[in-house]
Amino acid sequence: MTGDTRPGCRPPAARVRDTLALLGREVDCWVATCDPATGAPHLVPLSFVWDGATLLLATTERSVAGRGLAAGRVRTGLGATRDVVMVDGRVAAVHTADLDRAEAERFARRTGFDPRASTGSYLFFRVSPSRVQAWREEDELDGREIMRHGRWVVDEI
Amino acid sequence: MTGDTRPGCRPPAARVRDTLALLGREVDCWVATCDPATGAPHLVPLSFVWDGATLLLATTERSVAGRGLAAGRVRTGLGATRDVVMVDGRVAAVHTADLDRAEAERFARRTGFDPRASTGSYLFFRVSPSRVQAWREEDELDGREIMRHGRWVVDEI
Repeated sequence: MTGDTRPGCRPPAARVRDTLALLGREVDCWVATCDPATGAPHLVPLSFVWDGATLLLATTERSVAGRGLAAGRVRTGLGATRDVVMVDGRVAAVHTADLDRAEAERFARRTGFDPRASTGSYLFFRVSPSRVQAWREEDELDGREIMRHGRWVVDEI
Repeated sequence: MTGDTRPGCRPPAARVRDTLALLGREVDCWVATCDPATGAPHLVPLSFVWDGATLLLATTERSVAGRGLAAGRVRTGLGATRDVVMVDGRVAAVHTADLDRAEAERFARRTGFDPRASTGSYLFFRVSPSRVQAWREEDELDGREIMRHGRWVVDEI
């Protein structure tokens, strides 16, 4: 059962399509990490850019979010609380000077903020999704997993 | 500097007032926990009720969120990504049969979901805020902490 047959529930292909549209349209996401020093949960909204395969975030190296992201694991939430996309991913830190210039410029243009020009010690963080979930309300919880082990559950996107 | 003098930045009292209004009005929040088994960050939107001092959440005992909440620490996010309230808190699990009946009924009425009537093994979780932050955009980051060690930073609320 993937929920395809319940009235109002989107089939997997529709959830993937809506998710890709949201990733392309949205500028902010909720970024959940665990503080490697204390084991405490952390959460903060950050701007991002989606390049079709990865999310690019930026924050300061010494912030709680920055330390959590540097530990390598993140779960992000996008969209409204009753029409969500959740992305679990692996994280790689990228020094501002090492990011491809066109990509850094795209980030600045889209988010209105250029980490390269900031006086703080910012890092970019590239999130490679391993699992993606999409659901609206309770009735869509079944079938919410639309990416597993880095692969969309539908053959064509 | 608490940001009171910058144009457009809300003074602490206004942030506390807006935060209490949001807690009273909003039904859903983003709930960030750490999975005690794996140390991985977790995030999920859940409905809540605010009683003036604590947030009440509910989820199944065996879900990742449930296990994370049972570990005792949570950070929740409410509102829009550019007008947020973040609540760090300690968590106590409450069995559905042990919750005060009027409070359980208020939860059901407000969220549209009654964990007592569910077939799953739901628990209530009471979140006691220890720290609260409120900010809109970059210019409000200074002065964002409006509760410390469980006390609002303003004398009168």
